[in-house]
Amino acid sequence: MLKRVRSQSAHSVLCCPIGVTLFPTPFPRAQFDQALKLQSIYNELYCAMTEDEHWIQTTLQEILHVNPLAAALWEIHQDVKRVGGYTQNISCGIFRSDYMLQGDGTSKLAIDPADGSISIPQLKQVEFNTFSCAGASHAQKTVDMHRHFTRTGAYNSLTNGNSPVGLAALPENNNIQSLAACLAGAHTLYGQAKSKVAAETAVLLLVQPQNFNIADERPVEYALWNQASPVPAYRVEWGDNLLEHTSLSKTKELLFHPPWLQSQVPIEISVVYLRAGYEADEYDHVGKMARVRLETSRAIKCPSLLAQILTFKKVQQALTEPGSVERFLSPNKAAKIRKTFVPMYPLDESQAGLQARNWATDSDVARNYVLKPSLEGGGHNVYGANIPDFLASVARSAWCAYILMERIHSPAVYNVLMSPQGIGSGPVVSELGVIGTCIWKKTTEGSEFLSNTVAGWSYKTKHTDVDDMSVVKGYGCFDTPLLY
Amino acid sequence: MLKRVRSQSAHSVLCCPIGVTLFPTPFPRAQFDQALKLQSIYNELYCAMTEDEHWIQTTLQEILHVNPLAAALWEIHQDVKRVGGYTQNISCGIFRSDYMLQGDGTSKLAIDPADGSISIPQLKQVEFNTFSCAGASHAQKTVDMHRHFTRTGAYNSLTNGNSPVGLAALPENNNIQSLAACLAGAHTLYGQAKSKVAAETAVLLLVQPQNFNIADERPVEYALWNQASPVPAYRVEWGDNLLEHTSLSKTKELLFHPPWLQSQVPIEISVVYLRAGYEADEYDHVGKMARVRLETSRAIKCPSLLAQILTFKKVQQALTEPGSVERFLSPNKAAKIRKTFVPMYPLDESQAGLQARNWATDSDVARNYVLKPSLEGGGHNVYGANIPDFLASVARSAWCAYILMERIHSPAVYNVLMSPQGIGSGPVVSELGVIGTCIWKKTTEGSEFLSNTVAGWSYKTKHTDVDDMSVVKGYGCFDTPLLY
Repeated sequence: MLKRVRSQSAHSVLCCPIGVTLFPTPFPRAQFDQALKLQSIYNELYCAMTEDEHWIQTTLQEILHVNPLAAALWEIHQDVKRVGGYTQNISCGIFRSDYMLQGDGTSKLAIDPADGSISIPQLKQVEFNTFSCAGASHAQKTVDMHRHFTRTGAYNSLTNGNSPVGLAALPENNNIQSLAACLAGAHTLYGQAKSKVAAETAVLLLVQPQNFNIADERPVEYALWNQASPVPAYRVEWGDNLLEHTSLSKTKELLFHPPWLQSQVPIEISVVYLRAGYEADEYDHVGKMARVRLETSRAIKCPSLLAQILTFKKVQQALTEPGSVERFLSPNKAAKIRKTFVPMYPLDESQAGLQARNWATDSDVARNYVLKPSLEGGGHNVYGANIPDFLASVARSAWCAYILMERIHSPAVYNVLMSPQGIGSGPVVSELGVIGTCIWKKTTEGSEFLSNTVAGWSYKTKHTDVDDMSVVKGYGCFDTPLLY
Repeated sequence: MLKRVRSQSAHSVLCCPIGVTLFPTPFPRAQFDQALKLQSIYNELYCAMTEDEHWIQTTLQEILHVNPLAAALWEIHQDVKRVGGYTQNISCGIFRSDYMLQGDGTSKLAIDPADGSISIPQLKQVEFNTFSCAGASHAQKTVDMHRHFTRTGAYNSLTNGNSPVGLAALPENNNIQSLAACLAGAHTLYGQAKSKVAAETAVLLLVQPQNFNIADERPVEYALWNQASPVPAYRVEWGDNLLEHTSLSKTKELLFHPPWLQSQVPIEISVVYLRAGYEADEYDHVGKMARVRLETSRAIKCPSLLAQILTFKKVQQALTEPGSVERFLSPNKAAKIRKTFVPMYPLDESQAGLQARNWATDSDVARNYVLKPSLEGGGHNVYGANIPDFLASVARSAWCAYILMERIHSPAVYNVLMSPQGIGSGPVVSELGVIGTCIWKKTTEGSEFLSNTVAGWSYKTKHTDVDDMSVVKGYGCFDTPLLY
């Protein structure tokens, strides 16, 4: 469900179903398992990077001047250090690594698993998200839906004599409980209230005002309360609301003053789960003050500021450079990660960057690439032949905000997609996002894991003739992999 | 959630939240417990009545000429007997007895439990429903909401120094699982498929086309599939759809031919759960044929036709007559049931009826009464001073379709009601509906219980200045009793 924010009144609001595929879309089991296995290594990589400020600074230096969100976050990082630095050495991460399959493939009926005649496709990373991972609840509910259709036998007539779709081919999805378990784990690690004025601790969800995605957030919040040892969880809107209802004690505890408890004792925040604060325009003066308060506090952040800043595409591109992954991982692990990379280039004035600029401005060559700005999440990408004209409209000095990435050509299969925008069948391609959760501690040597878990996954599908996977815009549809 | 049926397209639909109270509304714990305890006696009463065709016929004789739904059901009953009678001697019932409190009471803040100064109100029955009991899922979800608000402390500032609202004061509600357990129990009693052509058995939900209340039905359906031993459950729309996708075997098994299994084996229906077929206009030629097929089949019906026909107000009124309840229950049980009755009168040409006609046409006297047509469910009632004018517009020969019932004056409390129609605070009154489930077998002596359970309850609240409790119209709001 998505909330129709504009229909909201004091007493009601309309909502509509999120886009879904009618049938589960085939995905090879080996690559699904491989993606899940890789996640703990990816978690390890990003945790290690988070604690390597020098590498982050070197890598992001160039984009700070052209990317307002990166600039705001880096400025806040400097501010935090100026006012005494970070108090909490434990961090929490909910990460998602998105993959598509690359390889030749003939089109297949969505419910007709591959018969082995096509070449085995390779798992290639589209992007890595270090921030909040919206969509986890939608993903789980969509899997429940496809599994329900399967158990009712609704797909049985469509198997062309093959064996019917069985539940064993549709992996279960427990995203909601997994995310809650991660936050509950961090909450437990935080321990008892440290402040003398607070009696209890709780998780604080930071959300955007005018929030269309509340049906994705609430299940995680309820799951926290529903833990065997209930974890209190409250929500506060980013901005003034956050400043008004929280305060920092002298000993850096983040105190929450619920609006409904005027004079009573505050609640000490153990974990801050950010589902807001990922857009440049959220960092006006109030937004910056709010973020500094969070970051200087003793609360465990999910994610920490330095983890969030790793979400930029520039980081993903820098990792493809020789020695980058190897800086953080053992050669064996680094090799496994590298296998999922497609070639990526900076658009700066380095030698590689100048070469990439030539490709990006040549409409024939550009066809094989995607131009990606260093922004959080998907969207805003420019595809193939549109790249030269787009770059012509951007000042050359700002080109370094973009990276050039080889397009991933996934084998197309047929399916029917259904969303508020319409219903349509045709060739589709899918994206598998593997969700990892981890909790780690900064140490003198770098970082030490307190937990490192493959939490779940999401699976989205779009028509091949649409470049954008955005679910909110109605292009991408939640899906379930039909493993073969 | 209610579906906005008119917004439905092939690919999407809008929905909006159902009306709820902002705060739980106080209700005395003793009367709550009493209502729950009474339910197994009410189950017993209605099961016994169902198997007493002579009493039903005598009681409903008068309204058959003026009530098209009663007439249609009775005609189908005769048709069934003509074509060989009922095959299945087990019946399943999901009943709901609705109560209001009667008694003086000063207005109280919704979250301020009574301090003992008011006189103890009496539990009085508003009506008894023998059909489908819509709203059970909404009721449970609303209780979950109020319990969530309570555990977050959202009500703490509103207690005026009294102890805060505690979870212990808000009873848990498990309607969804209870209804599913009842249907699953009947499914198990039905046993293995009897037909040679069917391999499996399943529950069939009959629903109305253009169904705004799907969010109330689906949870029960999913709960059936989610039983420890999953119970397959399918849905079919009333009318052509039902005739097309079911058939009766020679040995009277009800066979379901799922539209998605053209040539494959049919599924034998163990239990038919009717959530359609309760409106007169559903009984055109197709509707009658459909119902005859169901009733002549070996499937267990929930409810059976004779149980459904007991839902008319005429039956409720007839039960108030001397000796009626006593015909079916032991004196001790009968006395407990009678205590919940308010005076009710027929509007026929009997001595009591003529007296009631005098009252109903006198605007001063009528003030204390409600005029109720013998229709399923609430609504369509005429209140107090409106009765004389209303009756003047109805042919005298049709007056016997109505009963006259003394108004129940509930102590009003304050609350805030919120629905798609608006938000407003003020004095409110509540209605407690206790849901009973039972399975029974017709015997030569009458009926024998196979199960008799208090399944759950619903609690609805409306502004005192509105007569209608309809949730769909936005007057009634789902609520949770704050027990004191």
